[in-house]
This record gives sequence, structure tokens and C-alpha cells, in this order.
Amino acid sequence: MSDVYVVGIDMIRFGRYPDRTVVQLAADAALLALDDCGVAIGDVQALYSGNIGETMTGQRTLQLIGQTGILVVNCTNACATGATAFREGWTAIKAGLYDIVLCIGVEKMQPGMIVKKKVGNEPLPAEGLIGSETMPAVFAMVGMEHSRKYGTTPEQFARVSVKNHHHSTFNPKAMYQKETPLEEVMNAEMIAYPNTKLMCSVNVDGAAAAVLMSAKKARELGLEKRAVKVRASALASDAWSERNLVMQDINTVTRLAAKAAYEMAGIGPDELDLVELHDCFATAEILHYENLGLCAEGEGGRLIDSGETAIGGRIPVNASGGLLSKGHPLGATGIANIYEVVTHLRGEAGQRQVQGARIGLTHVVGLGSACAVHILEKV
Amino acid sequence: MSDVYVVGIDMIRFGRYPDRTVVQLAADAALLALDDCGVAIGDVQALYSGNIGETMTGQRTLQLIGQTGILVVNCTNACATGATAFREGWTAIKAGLYDIVLCIGVEKMQPGMIVKKKVGNEPLPAEGLIGSETMPAVFAMVGMEHSRKYGTTPEQFARVSVKNHHHSTFNPKAMYQKETPLEEVMNAEMIAYPNTKLMCSVNVDGAAAAVLMSAKKARELGLEKRAVKVRASALASDAWSERNLVMQDINTVTRLAAKAAYEMAGIGPDELDLVELHDCFATAEILHYENLGLCAEGEGGRLIDSGETAIGGRIPVNASGGLLSKGHPLGATGIANIYEVVTHLRGEAGQRQVQGARIGLTHVVGLGSACAVHILEKV
Repeated sequence: MSDVYVVGIDMIRFGRYPDRTVVQLAADAALLALDDCGVAIGDVQALYSGNIGETMTGQRTLQLIGQTGILVVNCTNACATGATAFREGWTAIKAGLYDIVLCIGVEKMQPGMIVKKKVGNEPLPAEGLIGSETMPAVFAMVGMEHSRKYGTTPEQFARVSVKNHHHSTFNPKAMYQKETPLEEVMNAEMIAYPNTKLMCSVNVDGAAAAVLMSAKKARELGLEKRAVKVRASALASDAWSERNLVMQDINTVTRLAAKAAYEMAGIGPDELDLVELHDCFATAEILHYENLGLCAEGEGGRLIDSGETAIGGRIPVNASGGLLSKGHPLGATGIANIYEVVTHLRGEAGQRQVQGARIGLTHVVGLGSACAVHILEKV
Repeated sequence: MSDVYVVGIDMIRFGRYPDRTVVQLAADAALLALDDCGVAIGDVQALYSGNIGETMTGQRTLQLIGQTGILVVNCTNACATGATAFREGWTAIKAGLYDIVLCIGVEKMQPGMIVKKKVGNEPLPAEGLIGSETMPAVFAMVGMEHSRKYGTTPEQFARVSVKNHHHSTFNPKAMYQKETPLEEVMNAEMIAYPNTKLMCSVNVDGAAAAVLMSAKKARELGLEKRAVKVRASALASDAWSERNLVMQDINTVTRLAAKAAYEMAGIGPDELDLVELHDCFATAEILHYENLGLCAEGEGGRLIDSGETAIGGRIPVNASGGLLSKGHPLGATGIANIYEVVTHLRGEAGQRQVQGARIGLTHVVGLGSACAVHILEKV
């Protein structure tokens, strides 16, 4: 089975692009990723495209670039959409079908809150009517449940946001690049306790793309120097029970994917040098510390207090600024967080570089549910 | 690289199901396919779900079945959606990731004509405004272009519909099961010349599902007797030029996929015993005879006249009744036509059985564009 390398990867700066289409954003990211490794679009054999909001995005992106004859698979998987597209590309190389594939994640977001839409003609559960199926409500509840069980404080949740906003001041591709002191985070408009507005991910447009290559082809083309090996690619889903949504879905699915990824890589969380995880809300980051095994059960609050998840700490988390400050364009997020880890493993992360990083983990989780975990290693 | 077998496959009868959700239809098909091979849902390792109209369909289907912990990939690729989901499942087994996967294709259709929707904020091309981007218009134009070049007659196009409606009288899972004599087809309401209403595919709800297994696992479980080997799985896309849509897109992409499939299988069209192809309109079937190499360029009209593509002929095409009479629920069609070919290869097609069938080909093509061709062989 062929090893698979990320040889080229890039993203556009996350932000608001009212005058550009989703396909234009996707094309921008695709061309940046190709340029990153000097691969011509004509040498790409297949495109795996992740986008939630539109259809046939992959084909339309290639059309805009002016390229024909590259087969396209379009994937959707809630917030794990981009990572799923990445994983389908990885799978195809593993299967020996192709040597060079392009993976794109892209989204244009609508301003405002994301509410679960009624789908088909299924009954809308009561939770939807009383608002608890809005994402802010769900992640408020999981935070409060953590507080109840382990005594996690509002300050501890808020510190996640302080840290990630601090990290983003070093990331030119983040939507926001400004410090948010603890007081400012805690005094911001309350969205759903304990998450204030500064503890909710940023609704932005974005796109990211990666060029994956079989190890053999990367060696042939002399692209090993900046290549990063995909040591594990795991995807998991859990049944979405409307009644058990709180706690169960968010945690279980991440634990399933993390377990599969660690097994595939043959390593444990102790061997990781950095992590980009799905901080869609500040409360989520604390939970995922535990779900990903970065600390023991119930220790998430103490982990953020310790400073160990800040750049310079034992295991920096969301060096990019995370979804809280870099932004969260749903379909793009999965590949954007792989971009962040790859950039560190290459030693190209500039002021935010995690020194000596050799192995990193990325995590995205979409309710519904789908969770993708990738473990990446410097070649 | 592991051989991949279809060990279980089934579909619901295509029709109108106003009281059932897309997820209920998908679950019906999934349970039928599992029952077909005696595999328990708990033994399935991954689900590849193809559906255009809704999101997270795969996860919601598993939820309805009551199963947790099976990872899900949702795919879309226009009319090739179901076949793409099937191919992603095949790819994952090829890659050695899983031994048992479930693939589902499902759609609930809206009554009425399918018009290309404006996507994003891209300009709507002039063709859309004058109606030529409606599917009936596109497939009328490609038919007329074939007539102009090769002298194909309206009667020849109409005979496709007569044949496929005849075939469907033997298929209990077809939407319609009635004969339509040539006169009735030609005198039906004109939709877009030369295609009358009886020469347009039927807008129905539907679902189909397949259980794929590594050859090794199928042997272990004693499932070889009714297994069918996937000898080739090819997917192709072509740039969608609004200006060159007519002829170019429909033909080129099918030729790309067919070439790739024949190469992968190491056979040519002469070795096929039956074909299920994308007869979304009667005109399309004539074109695809040529695109798939069933006859020489320009000979499509003569091929339908010869009767060779009817059951009992040299190379029966659309023994199921095809999209014209069985129906065309977009996301379901790709797996439904694999069901048809597998059923013949197993010798279980009853009154419509293509005698001695050992190798068959399936073809779906979605404008935009995506074309999938599978070549299947009796184990």
C-alpha cells in the first residue's frame, strides 16, 4: 500500500468575499496549492471537492481554471466536509488508482447563526422549536455539563478564546489578528452561557486546497523535501439521536475517530507536537482536549490554565488561531487545519512556528455526525 | 490489490412515495440489500451514500435503522451520484481500508421539469434564459445534431422508447410496466423535438443499495455463489462549457469513462453481454450506443432498427426498462442500473433474463459533468 504525501497545500485568507463566487474562491486555493509544489493542473488525475452549499463545485472550479478531463468526486459531511474530501483523495492513492490528486474544501457562509434546517418532510423535534438545536445552544450545554461534572469555570472556557486569538495575531491568513484579553472575552455579548460572542467561531468565507501524491511519485519529482506524510486518516460517524445530542454526539464521534487514527499511526497523543482541533466554540476545545487524549478526563480546564496548549507549551493547540479567530467556513475548515499542521511540520510557520514539530494531528467534527482525524508527519 | 465483489444488492420499486422521507426510502433499500446477502448492518464498516437533494443522508439513514458507529461519506455528482458513492466504496476496499461496505443511492424527486438552477452569484448564461439549458432542450438538440450528421430519423429515436417500455413489462421494480407502440410514442405530447413525453425519463422517487466486499471476505463468508466481481470502475468529468454543452459534454465524458473502464477491465465492447446505459431521453440512448462502442460512429439509428439491443438480441440495452420506463430518481439511478446488471449475471432476472450473461456494463452520466462506467463479471 503506497504511502501518501501532502506535497502542496495552501489556503486563501479567511474573510468576507461578497464579490467572489464559491467557485472563484475554490480556484484561488487550488492554484495556490498547485503553485506551492510546482505541479501543473494538467498533471492532476482526480479532484476531490468538499463543499456544502452548492452542487458540482469541483467540476465548476476546474471549468474556471480552464482544465478538462480531470475526474471529480464531490463530498459533503457537515463540518468534516473538507477533511472527507481530503480523505477520499488519500484513499484513491492508497488504492493505487492515482499518483496525483487535488483536494479542495470551500464555503461561502451566510451571515448569522447556523440553525439546523428542516430536511425533507421529517418532523421537527421539539428541541428545534425551543432553540436548543442551534449550534450555540448545543455547545453551551456541553460546556455546562462539563462544568457540572468537573467544575470547569467560565474563565477556563474563556481562556481558550484568549489563547486562540493570541495565536491568530501571528497568522496572516486568519480573519482576525487581534488580542482579546480575558476581560474582553468574558464581557462580550453573551450568546449562550458560558460562550460569549468572542467564544463562538467566526462565520467567514474561505477555501483551502492540498495536492496529494504517492510517495513514489513525490520521490520521482523531487518533492520530498517539503512533503508531509499522512500517517493516519480516520473518519467516524455516530448515530445522531435528537435526544442524546448533548454530550454524546460531540464526544463519542471524536473518540471513535481519534482511536482509529492513533491505531493506524501506531502512536499515542504523547507523541504529538501540535494539534489543530475543532474549536467551533470555546467550550468545545476543552472537551476535545479530553476526547483526543491530550489530558485525562475532566482535566481540560486545568490544561488550558497550565498554558501547555499555547504556542511554546507542551502541546500547542490551534496555533492558527482556530475557528474562533481564523474563522470557520464549514467545507474549507478540514483542509485549512491540515494546512496549518503541514506548515509547522515544514518549519514554515514564521512567528507562530511550533519549534521542532515533527508530528501533528488535525480534527474536525460535524454534528449529524462526522468526525475526521488526520495524523501528519514530517517526511 | 483486493478484488471487490458485489455480494448483496437490491432496490425499491421506483415510483411516487409522497408519504415517505428520503431517509426512509434509503433505509428500505439498505435493508433489502443486506437481506439479499445475509450480512448484518453491524458488520458493515463504512457507508457511502449518494443523494443530491438533502444533506447527511447517510448518517440519517443509519440513525433510522438504529445503527451507530459506521463511518459515512456522502457523495454528490449530478446523475452519477449513486455510481460515485458505489465507486468510493469500491475504492476504499481496494485501498484495504475495509472488507465490507454499504453503498446507497437515493432521491425524492419533485414533479415537473428539471431546470438548471442558478448557483451562487454567477451570471446566468443566455442559454438558460431562452430555455436551452433545460434537459429536454439539451437532449433534443443532441438528437437533432445526430440526425443532421447521420440521417437518424424520429422513428429510430422513438423505437428506443418502444424497446425500453417493452422491457419494463417484465420488471416488477419499474415505475411503468406497459407496452407503448411506436405510434403511441410518436403521437405523445411533444416535449422538445424529436423527444415526445414518452421519450423522456420518468421523474420518480427511488432508492437502491449494494453491499460490497473484498473477495477474501466473501470467500470466508461463503458468499461467492451469487457474487459479482467489479472488473472496472471508471469515473470521468469534462469541463462544462455553457457554449459547447450540446454534443461535447454528453459525448466526450462518456467516451472518457468508457475508455478508462475498458482499459481497466482489459476487454472491449464485443465481450459485453448486456448494458444498462443512461437513457434519460430516447435521443441519448442512440448517442451512447456509439459512445460506448456498441456500434460504429453514426450507426446508432441502424442499431436500434436491427433489434440487436432488445432482450434476445446481440447486446441487450436497458433490459430493466431504463430511465424511460423504470424511472430516473437521480441519486438512485447509478446503483439501480448496477442492480439490473448484477441480477442478470446471477441469472435471477426472471422473464427479462439475458440468457448466459457473464459480463455487463453500466453507464450513468450527469451534465456538469460526471460519467461513471462499471464493468461487472460473474464470479
